[in-house]
Amino acid sequence: MITLKKIINDPEAVVPEMVDGLVRAYPQILEQIPDTTAVVRTDKASMTGKVAVISGGGSGHEPTHAGFVGKGMLSAAVCGQVFTSPTPDQIYEAIKASDQGRGVFMVVKNYSGDVMNFDMAKDMAEMDDIQVASIVVDDDIAVENSLYTQGRRGVAGTLFMHKILGNAAQNGASLEELSKLAAAVLPCINTVAVALSAATVPEAGKPGFTLAEDEIEYGVGIHSEPGYRREKLRPSKDLVAELLEKLDDSLHLDPAKQYAVLVNGMGATPLMEQYIFSHDLFDALAKSKSRQPLPKLAT
Amino acid sequence: MITLKKIINDPEAVVPEMVDGLVRAYPQILEQIPDTTAVVRTDKASMTGKVAVISGGGSGHEPTHAGFVGKGMLSAAVCGQVFTSPTPDQIYEAIKASDQGRGVFMVVKNYSGDVMNFDMAKDMAEMDDIQVASIVVDDDIAVENSLYTQGRRGVAGTLFMHKILGNAAQNGASLEELSKLAAAVLPCINTVAVALSAATVPEAGKPGFTLAEDEIEYGVGIHSEPGYRREKLRPSKDLVAELLEKLDDSLHLDPAKQYAVLVNGMGATPLMEQYIFSHDLFDALAKSKSRQPLPKLAT
Repeated sequence: MITLKKIINDPEAVVPEMVDGLVRAYPQILEQIPDTTAVVRTDKASMTGKVAVISGGGSGHEPTHAGFVGKGMLSAAVCGQVFTSPTPDQIYEAIKASDQGRGVFMVVKNYSGDVMNFDMAKDMAEMDDIQVASIVVDDDIAVENSLYTQGRRGVAGTLFMHKILGNAAQNGASLEELSKLAAAVLPCINTVAVALSAATVPEAGKPGFTLAEDEIEYGVGIHSEPGYRREKLRPSKDLVAELLEKLDDSLHLDPAKQYAVLVNGMGATPLMEQYIFSHDLFDALAKSKSRQPLPKLAT
Repeated sequence: MITLKKIINDPEAVVPEMVDGLVRAYPQILEQIPDTTAVVRTDKASMTGKVAVISGGGSGHEPTHAGFVGKGMLSAAVCGQVFTSPTPDQIYEAIKASDQGRGVFMVVKNYSGDVMNFDMAKDMAEMDDIQVASIVVDDDIAVENSLYTQGRRGVAGTLFMHKILGNAAQNGASLEELSKLAAAVLPCINTVAVALSAATVPEAGKPGFTLAEDEIEYGVGIHSEPGYRREKLRPSKDLVAELLEKLDDSLHLDPAKQYAVLVNGMGATPLMEQYIFSHDLFDALAKSKSRQPLPKLAT
């Protein structure tokens, strides 16, 4: 029985069917690891002699993580059930499928289940004499601890870790070099979100929280975990000011330094709104660069 | 006053702010044509000596069209107001900004306002001795005539026209060659949609139509124009069967021929659902290829 308005078949089958659709859409890039919902690069030649960088987590955040598998990015990705950590067995299969003899580096987002299951897979692989190292990404500055997390949550900023480590691995970095690089990159990645509505898990059939018609919530997590404040919807430029102030509190933005900015819509915000938000963000950053004070949210 | 839950500032300013955000996000690819909401390729060297292929239309369908400007694709794109044809003046500026002396080919979606305004811009450019040719894309097989259209509507299949003509122009095709190519490609592009909900125009502040909680509509247009049938939500594989049967009626799919398939979410459907739909589509096409009859929708 369909209990929510989504283009799916059986709610229990969304992940295997998604992975099948993905690998058949991009056969030149991806193949499925047999008997798993994990994917690995088709082009094995591009992996030869390199450390493999892998990642994974619950599904429902596409293109994260399977969409980031490819040359100079991830070697493999493990797709767990929706909003659920992948099992140690599946992660172990991804380690074995991607290892080229130089070891495997795992990028893990900071959720208790993910951290535990990737650690167990590491232990399993080490019994096979596969070298494994990892980093736990905790980029979400909104809140300390959360529903499924000790410490800060790992969210969209993880993309920078995939890209930076994936590129370094493609260029021949060793497992030890990747570990040092990951540790240096980690504190530089800071992320914060605002939500106009909540995500719906297919198996639950209803949104993770409810906001009034004119209400937004700052600092929510990617599984609809609570944020740090609710208020009435504001114009885009006020949202930019709020989130930038929060980032500045954490990063102490220095106009003399350069920053890479990622704006993303958590899978649901149309591109038009993301570009309008970007317009306001560029304006705010330009002001900041000219050493004017960062815009403050009028209260 | 904000009348709808979107990340915007002034509803009247969404298009200029979107275009500004877009060109600042991709300065290596795009620049804004002064005093317009049109964009042109930054890399003029890649356009030199080539026929320019341009397109445009109402905004609200991003990444269409400005997102498809780049080498081997469009030379320029004109962003009209939301769901509103761009003005002849703006199209004329895009023609002038992209012409390299070998003429400009315009890809127009079949909406009365677009057809009229692109024609007027063509007349203006020809008075400047710029050669202009065009194709009107009418790929949506769902209905004949519609709210804003004589004949079939032009929708997502237009992407194939951008890609095929853009590539041919990049390889040196003349305006005449592009016209012949476009005429040959046109009848091959067939598109049909299903909607779970309607689009909302920022200036209107409410959806273009209303569907019950468990209701879908086949054949809707990209501005929430009426489709050909409403019914209860069905599993993804039934949606695939329905749309594929409709496409087969029009295209007479031949298992001996090869087809390119575009699955898109009209800007709102999450990737997970698009991949599940693709999974069902690949299954249905595989059956068709093995000369089994196409799956029919159980009624």
